[in-house]
Amino acid sequence: MHRVCFTLRVKPDKIDEYKRVHEQVWPEMLEALTRHGWRNYSLFLRHDGLLIGYCETPDFEAAVEGMQREPINAKWQASVGHLFEALPEGAADKSMSPIEEVFHLA
Amino acid sequence: MHRVCFTLRVKPDKIDEYKRVHEQVWPEMLEALTRHGWRNYSLFLRHDGLLIGYCETPDFEAAVEGMQREPINAKWQASVGHLFEALPEGAADKSMSPIEEVFHLA
Repeated sequence: MHRVCFTLRVKPDKIDEYKRVHEQVWPEMLEALTRHGWRNYSLFLRHDGLLIGYCETPDFEAAVEGMQREPINAKWQASVGHLFEALPEGAADKSMSPIEEVFHLA
Repeated sequence: MHRVCFTLRVKPDKIDEYKRVHEQVWPEMLEALTRHGWRNYSLFLRHDGLLIGYCETPDFEAAVEGMQREPINAKWQASVGHLFEALPEGAADKSMSPIEEVFHLA
């Protein structure tokens, strides 16, 4: 398993909406994430809009690419895209650059 | 277990030193962290100095307070304090404000 961390930016005036949407992620979306190897996946949202993702997966590139072949994910990304600050790669799920892990204690 | 995420800021010109120091954290420091309930503890360091901590623990407040009673931790914090941007509470281990988790998939 690899531990992966990435950051995105939620628009400060969309923080409440972001939280609300993520209380009820579509079951088919959750099922697809699990099927593509997303484990122990958390999203943390700081008051200023900094969004931090953490997950454990055998292969993060495969986990991201797998989701990009899922029609349900295209629908999901389209429905949440307006909540993010400008995304370098045009969609949240293409803009998750892994951040270097510099310490780990099991 | 609670999942906890916090952020700190490493001075951009101290990133290499921060990484080097964290490749060889003192064994007594690791032992104390484990004894006070820090599990699956990772630090991720973004190129601009954003430091993201993630850990799992039964009680984060107790985990932090437990470390603050450890003489080895006082020595550690004194040895790494100069690597951080101004810390709101004067030391890195007192400035770890948990960020709200807004989504989790097991």
